[in-house]
Formats: sequence, structure tokens, C-alpha cells
Amino acid sequence: MKKFRRSGRLVDMTNYLIHNPHQLIPLTYFADRYESAKSSISEDLTIIKEMFEDQEIGLLLTVAGASGGVKYIPTASNDEIVVFLEDLCQKLEDPNRVLPGGYLYMMDIIGNPKLMNEIGRYFATMFANKKVDVIMTMATKGIPLAYAVATYLNVPVCIVRHEHRITEGSLVSINYVSGSSKRIQTMSLAKRSLKEGSNVLIIDDFMKAGGTVRGMINLVDEFQSNVVGTGVLVEANHQEERLVDQYISMTKLSEVNTKDKLVKVEFGNFFEKLKQMKENE
Amino acid sequence: MKKFRRSGRLVDMTNYLIHNPHQLIPLTYFADRYESAKSSISEDLTIIKEMFEDQEIGLLLTVAGASGGVKYIPTASNDEIVVFLEDLCQKLEDPNRVLPGGYLYMMDIIGNPKLMNEIGRYFATMFANKKVDVIMTMATKGIPLAYAVATYLNVPVCIVRHEHRITEGSLVSINYVSGSSKRIQTMSLAKRSLKEGSNVLIIDDFMKAGGTVRGMINLVDEFQSNVVGTGVLVEANHQEERLVDQYISMTKLSEVNTKDKLVKVEFGNFFEKLKQMKENE
Repeated sequence: MKKFRRSGRLVDMTNYLIHNPHQLIPLTYFADRYESAKSSISEDLTIIKEMFEDQEIGLLLTVAGASGGVKYIPTASNDEIVVFLEDLCQKLEDPNRVLPGGYLYMMDIIGNPKLMNEIGRYFATMFANKKVDVIMTMATKGIPLAYAVATYLNVPVCIVRHEHRITEGSLVSINYVSGSSKRIQTMSLAKRSLKEGSNVLIIDDFMKAGGTVRGMINLVDEFQSNVVGTGVLVEANHQEERLVDQYISMTKLSEVNTKDKLVKVEFGNFFEKLKQMKENE
Repeated sequence: MKKFRRSGRLVDMTNYLIHNPHQLIPLTYFADRYESAKSSISEDLTIIKEMFEDQEIGLLLTVAGASGGVKYIPTASNDEIVVFLEDLCQKLEDPNRVLPGGYLYMMDIIGNPKLMNEIGRYFATMFANKKVDVIMTMATKGIPLAYAVATYLNVPVCIVRHEHRITEGSLVSINYVSGSSKRIQTMSLAKRSLKEGSNVLIIDDFMKAGGTVRGMINLVDEFQSNVVGTGVLVEANHQEERLVDQYISMTKLSEVNTKDKLVKVEFGNFFEKLKQMKENE
């Protein structure tokens, strides 16, 4: 392989780091890749680190020693998140979203990979230190956000489903009571989709009474694993006691008036929690 | 905003371009962002372009004139794809995947965002010039790959479903015959999920007789839109005539022997078609 100049290395290393977040990359990997001295690679990384921090693209952690290297942790700045969330709330307040039954049309938002990836990066910022092994979500509409978070945390996804498909081998199924409709429902996960002792981050698109999330928490128990966090895109206002007490919501649907087609959306608890977390670091 | 040196700009521009593929970015955007002269930005882009092409990260197209700018087109090299596909075929041939009924367990692959994103980039390379407006997929298992392709093409996703959920407003539903089971099934798409006259790329995880894909093609017709391509992750060997004649498959399941737990997987037509396409460019 030909030798690369610093400018070229910076471009390629940035691309590589962005595509390999939360992964320890030995300096020798880059030294070999560019046939450059480790000292030059270290200097390159210092430039990247400064720029990543300056532009709040993420952190670049360096681990010293023989088994050391560099690790890219994607993050997002408070300023960026506020602007994004204000825009998202405004989008969600569009009266044309109101559907019969007080539901909200959200497929334009969930169907937008760029929005999902942004929100995925925010959740990944929040849960970066939770040692997440796997993301769990519920088919269908939780999947896009779950994969976005998983991409930034560099972990796999397991998908819980309502159906009993036989095409994934033996399943673990649980019955649960939907908090809003009070109906008994079933959710299933393929046995080999989740290893015992995993740290699970639950991600879903919508939470009202919390029955689905509660069900997923119980399912995680069945797999002798631990829930290390729960993140939802939209939390709906709910009068009665919730079935889940710890969760992070990006936005909160405080009012849906079907008759007047009025929707009120505010920030969820995500932003406050993130600020607290950053202050405690 | 403070001034940035070239090295810093290269890092930040690379990050920005990678997160905004298939989008024309005016040079003034970068000039303002870094308070730099357009001539400096042009030189930066030349360095990035060379490195992107050298490392086959993608193409950097420059459009001259007042409404001009730069556009990043993600691509993948033939060498990289061959290595990846050989490894994928080997993974798929693991006899432990064989499930009753001749099905194959694939959730470890579909559940791996890194693999999905890689394959997404390959499909995005193949369909880069097809003026794709939107990706269509079928819930549940087609969704991860569909979003990966959509991220690299920077287009939205619409999700077709078997259920009749009422939470997305009025639906367009069609009946179709599953090619393998010969049963009549229904698929639905929310009316407002797809605009008339869209160029649609269909992405799915698995295709046997092609009934599901055929159904999606008919659904696209119902929306007065055009199918500009179909890509599947795994194509299964099928004796009878297929219901779809034009499709691109990443891999081909040529044999599943449940009794002996034998699986044979080979390259689909993707790689040959991509080579042809690149030769004709």
C-alpha cells in the first residue's frame, strides 16, 4: 500500500472511526493501514480528537498500554439537541396528524432515517456508559429507532413480536396486559436472540400506560438478563399509574384533542436527564 | 466562530459528508461554517475526493455554477464486497441455522446493524443512479436492511404490513397469493406513506417464489408510482416459475437439507450485476 500524507490519513481515519464507534482500535491498526509511525498516528488522533470535541461530534478516548488504542464515543451537544427537539415537537403538533381514536400519524417521522439516526445518536449519548450489550425493541415501529441507537452504540438488536412465527426456532413467550386497552396480549422472542446475562437497553417508539415496555422488562427477566435503560420516542400523557417507573422519553404528548384537531407536544424527560448526567461527569 | 485549520476542516467535512450522502451541499455552506475562502474549501474537497476514491469510500461529485456544490455518493469496491459476501455465505451455511420446515435462522445477521449497514451500502452503490425517492419494505424482517439502504441513499422508508392497524389513518390494501404457500394474504400501506409518482426501491430480507415482492409491486401500482429496482438479502432456490423476473439478490440459498442439516449458500446475482454496471460506466 502506498504511503499516505497526514491530510489523507485524517479523512480516512475520520471515516473509519465514525463507522466503528464504541470499539477499541489499536494504534497499530492505523499504523499498518497507512505504513506510518505510531507517533504520526498519535498526532493525527490528537487533531481528530480536538475537532470531534470542538464540533461535539463525539469523544475520542485513548487507552494507553500494550492492549491500548483509541475509541470513538458518539455524542451530541445540548445546543444541537434543543434545536432538534423544538423542531420535532413542532412537527408532531401538526393538526393533520390526528387520527380517529386519538392516535397520531408518525410514519413520516419514523420513516425518515435521518431523523431516526439523529435521535439514535442522542439516545446513544445518554446510554453511552451503561455497558449496553443489546437493544431490545418491539415490532414494527420501534425497529427503526432501535437500529439507529444500536448503530451508534455498535451493539446488536433483538426484536420482540406479537405473532408466533415459527421461522426463528423455539420462542420464549409471555402474556401481558396492555395498560391502555387492558387486554391480554402475547409477546415472543426467539430463544437464541438474547444471551443470558446481557445488559439490555429497551427502545420503543411510543409509550402510554407502559404495558408493552413492562412486558419487555418481564421478558428480559425470563432470559436472566438485566434492563439497563428504557428509551421511548414519544410518551403519551397518562392519568393512571404507569406500569413502568424508569424510562427516558424524547418527547411528551401532553394533549390530543380529536374534535378540535389539537396536539400539544413538549420535551420529554430526556433533555433534563442528559443535562444532569453531563453535569455529574 | 473561530477559524479552522485545514486539518480540522478535513475531519469535520468528512464527518459532514458521510452523514449527508446524495445531497448537494453548496461550497458556501462550508465556507461559512469555517469562515474560509471558497478556494480553500475547494482544495479541501480535492483532498477528500482523492482519499474517498483511493479508499473506495465513495465518489465526490462537484457541480459547477451558482447553484453548484458537492455531493457525496457512497460506494463499495468489488474487492471489499467479495470478501464480505464470502464471509456472509459461510456464516449462512452454519448447519445450526436449519429450522424445522426448511427455514433458516437469520436473526443474528439481521439483528447486526453493522452487517446491515455494510449490505445497505452495497445496495446503495448498485442503485445510486436510479433516482430512488423512497424505499419500500415489508414488516418485520425487511426493515433493518431497508433503513440501511435508505440511510446511504438519503431517502425515506415506507413499511408495508400484513396487519390492518388503524393507527396510521386510511390504508390501501391488496390481496396477493403467497407463491410458496399458495394462500391468499393481505398487505397494507398507509395512504399518506407514499406520494404519487414516486420512484420506489423495494428491499426485503428473503424471497422464495416472489409472492411478497409481487404484492409490493402491485401496491406501488396502486399508488401510481414506479418500481425502479428490487433488492433482497437472500434468494431461495425455487423450482417453479418466479412471480418476479427482475430482482437483485445478495446471496442465494441453493440447498437446505433439514434431515442432514446441510445448507448451501452462494453469491446471488448482485455481484455480477454490479461488475457489469461498473464496466458500463
